[in-house]
Amino acid sequence: MIYLDNAATTKPSSSAMEKASVYVTEEYFNPSGKYRQAVKLTADLAETRKTLLSLVGKRNGEVIFTSCGTESDNTAVFCHVGKGKCVTTEGEHSAIDAAFEELSRRGTVTEKAKLHADGSVDVEDLLSKIDERTAFVSVIHVNNETGAINDINSIAKKVKAIAPRCIFHSDGVQAFGKIPVSLSADVDLYSISAHKIGGLKGVGALIAKPQAIHPFVFGGGQESGLRSGTENVFGIKVLEYAAKEKCEKLSENFEKVSAFHQKMRTELAENGFQIISGNNVSPYVLSVSAGAVRGEVLLHMLENYGVLVGTGSACSSKNRFSRIIRACGYGEDVLDGVVRISFSAETTEEEVAFATEKMIECANKLKKVMGVSSWKK
Amino acid sequence: MIYLDNAATTKPSSSAMEKASVYVTEEYFNPSGKYRQAVKLTADLAETRKTLLSLVGKRNGEVIFTSCGTESDNTAVFCHVGKGKCVTTEGEHSAIDAAFEELSRRGTVTEKAKLHADGSVDVEDLLSKIDERTAFVSVIHVNNETGAINDINSIAKKVKAIAPRCIFHSDGVQAFGKIPVSLSADVDLYSISAHKIGGLKGVGALIAKPQAIHPFVFGGGQESGLRSGTENVFGIKVLEYAAKEKCEKLSENFEKVSAFHQKMRTELAENGFQIISGNNVSPYVLSVSAGAVRGEVLLHMLENYGVLVGTGSACSSKNRFSRIIRACGYGEDVLDGVVRISFSAETTEEEVAFATEKMIECANKLKKVMGVSSWKK
Repeated sequence: MIYLDNAATTKPSSSAMEKASVYVTEEYFNPSGKYRQAVKLTADLAETRKTLLSLVGKRNGEVIFTSCGTESDNTAVFCHVGKGKCVTTEGEHSAIDAAFEELSRRGTVTEKAKLHADGSVDVEDLLSKIDERTAFVSVIHVNNETGAINDINSIAKKVKAIAPRCIFHSDGVQAFGKIPVSLSADVDLYSISAHKIGGLKGVGALIAKPQAIHPFVFGGGQESGLRSGTENVFGIKVLEYAAKEKCEKLSENFEKVSAFHQKMRTELAENGFQIISGNNVSPYVLSVSAGAVRGEVLLHMLENYGVLVGTGSACSSKNRFSRIIRACGYGEDVLDGVVRISFSAETTEEEVAFATEKMIECANKLKKVMGVSSWKK
Repeated sequence: MIYLDNAATTKPSSSAMEKASVYVTEEYFNPSGKYRQAVKLTADLAETRKTLLSLVGKRNGEVIFTSCGTESDNTAVFCHVGKGKCVTTEGEHSAIDAAFEELSRRGTVTEKAKLHADGSVDVEDLLSKIDERTAFVSVIHVNNETGAINDINSIAKKVKAIAPRCIFHSDGVQAFGKIPVSLSADVDLYSISAHKIGGLKGVGALIAKPQAIHPFVFGGGQESGLRSGTENVFGIKVLEYAAKEKCEKLSENFEKVSAFHQKMRTELAENGFQIISGNNVSPYVLSVSAGAVRGEVLLHMLENYGVLVGTGSACSSKNRFSRIIRACGYGEDVLDGVVRISFSAETTEEEVAFATEKMIECANKLKKVMGVSSWKK
């Protein structure tokens, strides 16, 4: 099996799980307990908070553990029900996009900025929607479908110049552990997810400037009252260890994956694929279109060779066309054929070579079956 | 170590984890993927839903996987913002209690029914607060501090007789897997949590009558659009296997734990402890008070003998006095001394005997230090 859908989820790191296993075998206590074995866990969680803060380049701030990137994003958004205008982009993950729709249903004014063809936000358009009463702005760090990198520090600075009191959030789920992350003080909130970087599903975090958020989940007052519910200590520690593994080798992995990205991109382009990912891109994501050849058909053909890829975001797989690629300005001829290849640090050169070969082979076969002389419309 | 704080959390079942481990080693895919390996996971999750429904005695309904009992409770509550009056009891877990406070802050009319001395709800008082326009009623199944069992089927029937269109919810976190659960059609929503029955922290479920809830977390539309976020397949399968283990041996475990409960209860009563738990109680919880001897001091003395117990709910450990025991009608003399012993199916007779002996010994020592002739005020 050649797994190239790492933007959807990654294989959990066995070393991180092994290291954290003590939290299911021996130290399985509830951190709210009053005996020292339970109290110790609060310190262990504090260590994770410190690690995560340092890995995003923050000297201080809160780290609120959540159940996933989606919950982190929702927590950021739903603080702003009934406040001033909330602005985001057309290139957000569904966790922001659907939360903004709900925000709007609850009576809050919302707006979305346009995208460039590579999926990055049109900053001028974004800024034109912001005024000094804007309450909340959310801009994804790395687009989950095209890999486009938004320069969130620079964008946040420009946003704050217009709306100094607004809260600036970024969904960093596809960035953290993959590209260098060094958040400026203008970025108030930052969402991360464990299972995109070798952690477990069911764990996320929201890195937050103190006082920047209100609770989303109410109960026993865990996470300084900001997120109630018994802390998932095991999952949180796996996140810490996996994040460390990824961030310690970030440059090395980045270079390796960049070479894979470039190689596949060049070969696919030479063989008639439309490349959607731009130049300022996370190497972990490569979005292409096989044009008239439907992406889903190609995906299933590749599956028979053991090559697993995605079509747009796994999280919005119920719609035929990707909302985001459409917002990049492509028509249905391109949209139908979208395939997302996403690498991990564990991907090998041989896997990339085999997958590239099979993608070209399968697309050509389909072209013949369809009777089109050129499958790139 | 003698672990008697199982109502706070339980040791994860190693057999359930082992059986589910394939979901972290091989089948770690995102269920939203379109290749067959991912699609298969949707079927695996459907199997868990079917199992859980059958284990609560429901023939049909939805099972929405959440990140914890608290989120399940919050999902049930926050559907009702801006609807009719919402009614609960003074004996709820903080996940309901704090969510109701927030509901009230958001402008919804809320009321709480009184408790009997054992922590069960005063049904007459509850019914007196309900009229035909009541939108939502939530009554805990087994009180997490006293173990009192509320007959939720009977209560739901009476509630529906007054308010046929209201949604009836019950927090079943301390009931499921421990006492027989067979929900009638009048119970629309039921919350469960994995880590209270040998599953992992970070996993819960809300069992729901179709159309009874709205989404609480918005995003990619997982869980039939009712709970977005990548499904925690591993945690969900551990829940399934752990729940099966517990429910298959439910009667056997119940009898064993009942004997422990009865033995400890009798001996503690004979040695001056005030017994708070009543007669219609889950045997898994025994709430007592050492009166003038502070529960927390007793807890730390016991800790030195390796005996771990709780003081009230672990989830509300920031307040000196238990909100729930206070609502049972006790004064500060009793409240100060509250200790919660909570058993699991894995507790042994020897552990119970040792813990009982040490509780009596430590309380007597403290009594001497404090210079009181009778430490039961």
